Amino acid sequence: MSLGEPRFSGVVPPLVTPLTPSGEVDVPSLERLVEFLVEAGVGGLFALGSSGEAAFLTDRNRDRSLETVVRAAAGRVPVLAGCIETTTARVIERAEIAAKLGADAIVVTAPFYARVHPVEVDRHFRAVKASVGLPMLAYDVPVSVHTKLAVDRIVALAAEGVVDGLKDSSGDDAGFRQVVLGTAGLPGFSALTGHELVVDAMMLAGAHGVVPGLGNVDPHGYVRLSRACAEGRWSDAKAEQDRLTRLFRIVEAASPATAGGSTRGLGAFKTALVLRGVIAGATVSPPMRELTPEETSVVAAHLEKAGLL
Amino acid sequence: MSLGEPRFSGVVPPLVTPLTPSGEVDVPSLERLVEFLVEAGVGGLFALGSSGEAAFLTDRNRDRSLETVVRAAAGRVPVLAGCIETTTARVIERAEIAAKLGADAIVVTAPFYARVHPVEVDRHFRAVKASVGLPMLAYDVPVSVHTKLAVDRIVALAAEGVVDGLKDSSGDDAGFRQVVLGTAGLPGFSALTGHELVVDAMMLAGAHGVVPGLGNVDPHGYVRLSRACAEGRWSDAKAEQDRLTRLFRIVEAASPATAGGSTRGLGAFKTALVLRGVIAGATVSPPMRELTPEETSVVAAHLEKAGLL
Amino acid sequence: MSLGEPRFSGVVPPLVTPLTPSGEVDVPSLERLVEFLVEAGVGGLFALGSSGEAAFLTDRNRDRSLETVVRAAAGRVPVLAGCIETTTARVIERAEIAAKLGADAIVVTAPFYARVHPVEVDRHFRAVKASVGLPMLAYDVPVSVHTKLAVDRIVALAAEGVVDGLKDSSGDDAGFRQVVLGTAGLPGFSALTGHELVVDAMMLAGAHGVVPGLGNVDPHGYVRLSRACAEGRWSDAKAEQDRLTRLFRIVEAASPATAGGSTRGLGAFKTALVLRGVIAGATVSPPMRELTPEETSVVAAHLEKAGLL
Amino acid sequence: MSLGEPRFSGVVPPLVTPLTPSGEVDVPSLERLVEFLVEAGVGGLFALGSSGEAAFLTDRNRDRSLETVVRAAAGRVPVLAGCIETTTARVIERAEIAAKLGADAIVVTAPFYARVHPVEVDRHFRAVKASVGLPMLAYDVPVSVHTKLAVDRIVALAAEGVVDGLKDSSGDDAGFRQVVLGTAGLPGFSALTGHELVVDAMMLAGAHGVVPGLGNVDPHGYVRLSRACAEGRWSDAKAEQDRLTRLFRIVEAASPATAGGSTRGLGAFKTALVLRGVIAGATVSPPMRELTPEETSVVAAHLEKAGLL
Repeated sequence: MSLGEPRFSGVVPPLVTPLTPSGEVDVPSLERLVEFLVEAGVGGLFALGSSGEAAFLTDRNRDRSLETVVRAAAGRVPVLAGCIETTTARVIERAEIAAKLGADAIVVTAPFYARVHPVEVDRHFRAVKASVGLPMLAYDVPVSVHTKLAVDRIVALAAEGVVDGLKDSSGDDAGFRQVVLGTAGLPGFSALTGHELVVDAMMLAGAHGVVPGLGNVDPHGYVRLSRACAEGRWSDAKAEQDRLTRLFRIVEAASPATAGGSTRGLGAFKTALVLRGVIAGATVSPPMRELTPEETSVVAAHLEKAGLL
Repeated sequence: MSLGEPRFSGVVPPLVTPLTPSGEVDVPSLERLVEFLVEAGVGGLFALGSSGEAAFLTDRNRDRSLETVVRAAAGRVPVLAGCIETTTARVIERAEIAAKLGADAIVVTAPFYARVHPVEVDRHFRAVKASVGLPMLAYDVPVSVHTKLAVDRIVALAAEGVVDGLKDSSGDDAGFRQVVLGTAGLPGFSALTGHELVVDAMMLAGAHGVVPGLGNVDPHGYVRLSRACAEGRWSDAKAEQDRLTRLFRIVEAASPATAGGSTRGLGAFKTALVLRGVIAGATVSPPMRELTPEETSVVAAHLEKAGLL
Repeated sequence: MSLGEPRFSGVVPPLVTPLTPSGEVDVPSLERLVEFLVEAGVGGLFALGSSGEAAFLTDRNRDRSLETVVRAAAGRVPVLAGCIETTTARVIERAEIAAKLGADAIVVTAPFYARVHPVEVDRHFRAVKASVGLPMLAYDVPVSVHTKLAVDRIVALAAEGVVDGLKDSSGDDAGFRQVVLGTAGLPGFSALTGHELVVDAMMLAGAHGVVPGLGNVDPHGYVRLSRACAEGRWSDAKAEQDRLTRLFRIVEAASPATAGGSTRGLGAFKTALVLRGVIAGATVSPPMRELTPEETSVVAAHLEKAGLL
Repeated sequence: MSLGEPRFSGVVPPLVTPLTPSGEVDVPSLERLVEFLVEAGVGGLFALGSSGEAAFLTDRNRDRSLETVVRAAAGRVPVLAGCIETTTARVIERAEIAAKLGADAIVVTAPFYARVHPVEVDRHFRAVKASVGLPMLAYDVPVSVHTKLAVDRIVALAAEGVVDGLKDSSGDDAGFRQVVLGTAGLPGFSALTGHELVVDAMMLAGAHGVVPGLGNVDPHGYVRLSRACAEGRWSDAKAEQDRLTRLFRIVEAASPATAGGSTRGLGAFKTALVLRGVIAGATVSPPMRELTPEETSVVAAHLEKAGLL
């Protein structure tokens, strides 16, 4: 049996959404970010994911963000659009807009806020898939939706053609490997890990690509890492991953006494992009807060050590 | 210091949103539900809460639902409007619409999906409150938002005038009591429990009112219960609560093998309202499912035993 | 049908285990504590519960503690003995020792550390009960064992005669009420709440008694509260409970930056007992720590405000 | 700085404890298991871990199990002894016995049942280490103790010489990698992953060895896998790991409707060892249950497919 190629592979960064000081999408900065990533050699762009502040943006700003990414990508790489909403009807609304705005695929989580059974999660994915003609990746992100997608259900939905890939941010590497094994014969299925500190390990285990938040900041590093894996240069891959793992400590810059996980991650990525001259400002959506000057200097020190300033 | 009365008290049912078979708001059924509740003597109506399928409805249907409740209530009792959205800017959009549609108060949860620090949760409530002129109740519902509001923070926000009440669906009765004690001197503060099986107990502990999902089905029972408490007839209250506690087992009708918590609760409430002749159909939003005929007959048996058919 | 009386009722404090500075059981202090509680009018003594540091004491010290409580109680009130162990065979060993040392009942949790199915939890209770002739209370304490006992299973085990009572430290008051309703006809069944801040509420809901950690510190208050409930003087009960709820803030004296829940609770109870002259020292087992002088003065201030110094 | 070798490396299986039908340690079976593993080329033996039913065995059976393993190993490979107890004093008792019985190292978890602060967890490890002269591995197993050890704390304790290694069963591969990086310069420190389905991945990331429950069943496979990793034959390693990942599905043989995680895992391992002729019986400790004949045939089918029957 010929396996076919995965539809999406390599580095697919979940783009941050640069904002103006008043909280509007900073379109020129977002265009520069797209350019920065595409030139680095990424394999796709994931707009409106958790890193894109999808849960923070109004619908108007979600639309502006996606529309900008699609336009700036200009067909050079595929654009995946997060459709992050609580339940089925609301996700379908977002999926229809994503299709209209030119996304190449949608990325969909299990329902959240609602309390649903695995059987209902299946029904959710089926209904969303049926609503639009686009490829759909299941987005497994229990830290946000508080539901873990079971291996066997993902594999079954893949076999049925309901889900065309997995974006795994669950941290469950053993489960991810089991999905990879279980979907091995499915043409086009894309197994993408979001576990950005073990990309070498997960590509050894069979991942087709990675969706690294830190890839906003150092796309060149992730592209080198991904290529080393693809070429079987595992010790090169490990060395690159170790370097990126150290760089990841920028997410510890913001004080845990006053900043939640979203602020610590997104705030640091945006701050680093400002320091690297890619985007204009590090504004984040409320109730998150921007990093302080002191925290910013911690980020700068990490960038410097990594040779990125 | 004169304590003043709580702004909201007595039974404030979180209205279900009746739907047509195609998933639109069934306006005549919703009007009949409002009438049924107001005539039973409730102290207010809570639209677009978890029981109102706020997390399932599109914005258009949310608007239609709230607009219907406000119109049907016709000023006889206050209408509280849930503004159930992931983060600050999105909640503010909903709050502005609630104000425009004539709600008397808004009900707001901590952010969800996003990962936020308690300091950020405070900022969230402050920003939402600042955005509209309406009274705001904090809605503590960790089963859905996966964050518990801390007693001391609620009390501090209340003292500052940021939150004007609490709708406590956390199940943490000891914490609720501590909020009651901590806000005792604040004029107008409304401490409402959502813990519908221990209303006698919580009113003894100082609750001003209750927001019972089951109150859709048997508002007369909850009104009797609430009045018995208000008049210090505690053994009458206990007897009524015990009866309602038995009735609550309707939420166990739907099989846990195929139905999540939302289906089991909302599906049963809607089914019971159909059986009682209040609403036309028991349709629920996807990915939930309607109760089967067999499950419906379990609900009917409970209603019969409770003298409600 | 005649209901019979619950076997255990009223205030059944979970005794702390006073320790010498070197960590041995301080027998004279424990004897004084028993005297203090019995004279206050408690309905029973619960030795080797969570408050008794059962999880911290070596088997030798567990034995010494229980043996002292039984001897000092001298048959004036029943002694319940916690058998806090990971799984069945280990619990049975403790249960046999409890029987030998003269306990009147055993108190048993679901297995912990092990990952077990509800069916296995049932088997656990059946095997332990079969091993000794003593009455057995199920101890529902998910904060420690990370398993919640389901209402229907407790009721079924009670109906079968496997469990003779429930010590509910789950905080799930609605579930507790359902157990009370479900076991109403069972002679001797004892429904004891461990929810020490809502005793008035839970006794209104049908609890037979309470197991309050704070009852070590102010047994007279809990006895007054329990009697007010028994006599239907609900507003007296509420006033007493409100006073005890304020006193409970002694558990916030130890800094959350350096003390876990066990230290904060047990450390405060022991410190208060030293301040009240009942026990000689506030030593706690490692890795807990004793309260600092500053924290001790916070406890003292609360005691003073409550009229206990 | 010379890095030195890790003290423990390669495959270190957590031995199951074979039991007679009456629940005593089956000494001859345990001796055969030790022989089976040592001959396969393992790098050490981990007795009295979670797989060894440490949480299920009485102290007498714990001693008998450890004593048997030490004697049968006869110094050919080091023996690590789990000291699985709730808190400090109880762990120290077990550690002293382990030392007396000839263990080469102890393996210690964070406290459980008790509610402790990270500062108290540190104190726990320091006190245990100070009590015996043996090397100590921290055992990170949140699924059982419900506490996750933080990367920075493990690294700090390692730098101080308190912990000499990590046995990581947390499933947090990114954290594990950070520990590996943080302890890189510490002579003798042993980073062992318990994540048995991603051993290739974790050894690429820097693990020194693995503690696989499934290693009881197929030690030869894990030894091949470990050697392939050590020699940089990564695609051989991946192929072997993929085979073992498929074999791991034996843990799904027992029905999730009647068996908890402990039964499903340990029951399957023991059943497979009986089928492979290594141990005499598949008895497990109560409240677990043995696999049914039907479930056993599922295990047999997996073994057959893996070429192990």
